[in-house]
Amino acid sequence: MFESAELGHSIPKKEFAKREAELREALLAAQYELLAQKKTQVIVVIGGVDGAGKGETVNLLNEWMDPRHIITHAFGERSDEESERPRMWRFWRALPPRGKIGILFGSWYTDPILWRVQGKSKTAEFERYLQDINHFERMLVDEGAIVLKFWFHLSKKVQRKRLKTLEADPKTRWRVTDLDWQRFKQYDEFRAVSEVALRETSTGEAPWTIVEGTDPNYRYLTVGQHLLDALRDRLSNAAPPPARASVLPKSALDGRNLLNELDFSGKLTKKAYTRKLEKYQGKLSLLTRDPRFANRALIVVFEGVDAAGKGGSIRRITGALDARHYSVVPVAAPTEEERAHTYLWRFWRQLPRKGRVMIFDRSWYGRVLVERVEGFCTESEWLRAYSEINDFEEQLTNADAIVVKFWVTVTEDEQLRRFQDREKTPFKAFKITAEDWRNRAKWQEYEHAVCDMVERTSTEDAPWVLVSANDKYAARIAILHTLCERLAAAL
Amino acid sequence: MFESAELGHSIPKKEFAKREAELREALLAAQYELLAQKKTQVIVVIGGVDGAGKGETVNLLNEWMDPRHIITHAFGERSDEESERPRMWRFWRALPPRGKIGILFGSWYTDPILWRVQGKSKTAEFERYLQDINHFERMLVDEGAIVLKFWFHLSKKVQRKRLKTLEADPKTRWRVTDLDWQRFKQYDEFRAVSEVALRETSTGEAPWTIVEGTDPNYRYLTVGQHLLDALRDRLSNAAPPPARASVLPKSALDGRNLLNELDFSGKLTKKAYTRKLEKYQGKLSLLTRDPRFANRALIVVFEGVDAAGKGGSIRRITGALDARHYSVVPVAAPTEEERAHTYLWRFWRQLPRKGRVMIFDRSWYGRVLVERVEGFCTESEWLRAYSEINDFEEQLTNADAIVVKFWVTVTEDEQLRRFQDREKTPFKAFKITAEDWRNRAKWQEYEHAVCDMVERTSTEDAPWVLVSANDKYAARIAILHTLCERLAAAL
Repeated sequence: MFESAELGHSIPKKEFAKREAELREALLAAQYELLAQKKTQVIVVIGGVDGAGKGETVNLLNEWMDPRHIITHAFGERSDEESERPRMWRFWRALPPRGKIGILFGSWYTDPILWRVQGKSKTAEFERYLQDINHFERMLVDEGAIVLKFWFHLSKKVQRKRLKTLEADPKTRWRVTDLDWQRFKQYDEFRAVSEVALRETSTGEAPWTIVEGTDPNYRYLTVGQHLLDALRDRLSNAAPPPARASVLPKSALDGRNLLNELDFSGKLTKKAYTRKLEKYQGKLSLLTRDPRFANRALIVVFEGVDAAGKGGSIRRITGALDARHYSVVPVAAPTEEERAHTYLWRFWRQLPRKGRVMIFDRSWYGRVLVERVEGFCTESEWLRAYSEINDFEEQLTNADAIVVKFWVTVTEDEQLRRFQDREKTPFKAFKITAEDWRNRAKWQEYEHAVCDMVERTSTEDAPWVLVSANDKYAARIAILHTLCERLAAAL
Repeated sequence: MFESAELGHSIPKKEFAKREAELREALLAAQYELLAQKKTQVIVVIGGVDGAGKGETVNLLNEWMDPRHIITHAFGERSDEESERPRMWRFWRALPPRGKIGILFGSWYTDPILWRVQGKSKTAEFERYLQDINHFERMLVDEGAIVLKFWFHLSKKVQRKRLKTLEADPKTRWRVTDLDWQRFKQYDEFRAVSEVALRETSTGEAPWTIVEGTDPNYRYLTVGQHLLDALRDRLSNAAPPPARASVLPKSALDGRNLLNELDFSGKLTKKAYTRKLEKYQGKLSLLTRDPRFANRALIVVFEGVDAAGKGGSIRRITGALDARHYSVVPVAAPTEEERAHTYLWRFWRQLPRKGRVMIFDRSWYGRVLVERVEGFCTESEWLRAYSEINDFEEQLTNADAIVVKFWVTVTEDEQLRRFQDREKTPFKAFKITAEDWRNRAKWQEYEHAVCDMVERTSTEDAPWVLVSANDKYAARIAILHTLCERLAAAL
């Protein structure tokens, strides 16, 4: 794999000067066009061996183009805020919005490769990381980003020479640390592991470009030209990336589904409700104060039909919690900044630290519910959202979060009764809008979407809980009871 | 000051039940109105002695109202990301946007009071913190926020009893820690210091409300009712808060000012420029790699007339830096999210960690330049911005940041020449718009605004550097030279 990057590629000084002048002008023009179109973001991943000129190349890209519209991130040690959230959180923080170029110096590849080289992770784990990366990058590309990955390579001989040369010059000595030499001792392992990583993650949508780092002129032009080609290709190409075709199975032949099989007969008297409410709120309160919870996070998702009583259920949960430890996030239309990022970005930015409870009132499932039914996104977008969401939630549970998801629903008749009741009561009238009636008219389509959603995203670690809420008391108790059970089992 | 909060205020259970029912309905209605108007944010600061029911009260407010639109923050230890930035950064992160209620449990008062009690700060320092707080809160109120401050008080006797009672009950024992008892030993000092803090910060725009914490019913209703009154008052009151009148002195009688006295004769040959560029870029490069810089941050502000060459100067700076250590922030119109916050919020969110360089291409000075001249803000807004900006920059320098501000300017004739040149050159044409011509027509007004700005915001720690840029080479060298000097002096 690295053979062609050990050939001793080089570009003569004179040719470089000529090509550089053309290249930088073209890159700058392409950068402004990218900024003007604001349709795509460019994510440049930089990896490779030490001393191969990664830093200089990134600096030069910033010099060739307008550094005001390039966001360069270097990833060192995790900050405490980063280490309390899923591994990928720090990268989501660093993703550029559409129109900009983000250069990630060190990236999601650094840790998996180093851990494997140092023997901190086993092969199976390593392979799993690589698969996660493939999913992540596919998501980025599906959302319209250009992902360019450059691997800077040096042969062992050249690397040794390079480190020695840097060390000999007083002006560059600071750049060579003991760590560099330590790593150099592991050159062979590093090379072998990197080769696997590059092979497994060189996908159609985000292939690696291996850059021989020996000659500066060669590596600068290679990276710059490849970036330019990718930019030009996308900028001139008005067509969106091809959708991956897929067909969802139709509803079952006998018409039975999860929702219409739901039992709506549960009922609680006010007295029994009050007693049970106190009991489960007390339990929940103790569970979230359990010292073991300090190393976990609880993420609760509420989805449901209009007027099913989500808000009331949320208040019964927060009533048991300490306001210092929970937040409720009402999910509405995305803001301008959020729209400039990939779909899941706005949920990543809301992820809780450890020891906290985050309640989402509507959530990332909007894409496969309202956005699907109302046509706010394309079919290929909501089709791929199922696996993107599963990946996302898997990362949450891997980072020790407990994910609980409720679909709160009432029967069509009951919803009608509640709508009419709301319209009659002045105090509640603000809760009902024309949109609620419009949504109601699409009951069947929503039911179909919900069944697909539950079928495709109810996982072992983050299962859906369907709550029949014709009786508000019974629904609230069922929700509190479930939360207590899930928490108790997880701690 | 605390006398009236030691009277043993209480509300009988029956009266509480009745008033609570009315209050919560009214609070909820007011909260939704606040959300609908989206014109103001409510900032509730909670402070006081331990065991006085702060936590319970905040929990109850969340229960009475819709917790989805309340953002509660508790401030514990600073995270590493917080401790590398100015003290107030963590609070700016927690400020609610317009339409929402933010409850700050523990706040900017906690540290100054504790440090004074523990003898970690002297009186003068303490007084200085309190003045900083007054400036900060005045800014919040001027920007349209409602700031409500509640101090929960218990007499020494009652506090001892309260802590003992909590400790006796297995259900509440977890809430009393050794730290609470340790603090109790310092009750008298705490009371004395708090009294000074409350007196000095009980301003007209953000007065303290002292709440006796003995009787739960009393404290709940007191806080709830006060919040309701404040909300109703603002919601019904369409008029903006009264502007503080102020008159700026007119230009000097002899017509001389900082800008028209500027010397534009400086010139550099290309050869001299190339030599000096290399020299100062090398210096700058070494300075930012100096180990002492790891504990500082460099914040560079660029303002100037159109076509004065800000972009080119910025590129000459970044050319000397490592892309991993700097960012350039181009400041354009604020986003939707930024507009929902107080003016300076969008700059606070961009503050660099230590060891980093942040270059602002246009900045917070927009308010006293373009916004003033174009009438995008009111007169009282830009008038008060001078001191808000001075406060802001003082916080930056206090947090060990080095702040360097450049006003880059050319003569009117030279600007005309450059505009015409840009229009003729296809490659540069995108850089010139009708807006540039419109700005040019207001040359005198801008000149006046710039003179006011320099006069009012050029401080010892963050002075303005006026750069005459008719000769681009000389200007760039002057800028690099200044940066090197300032850095060398600061390290």
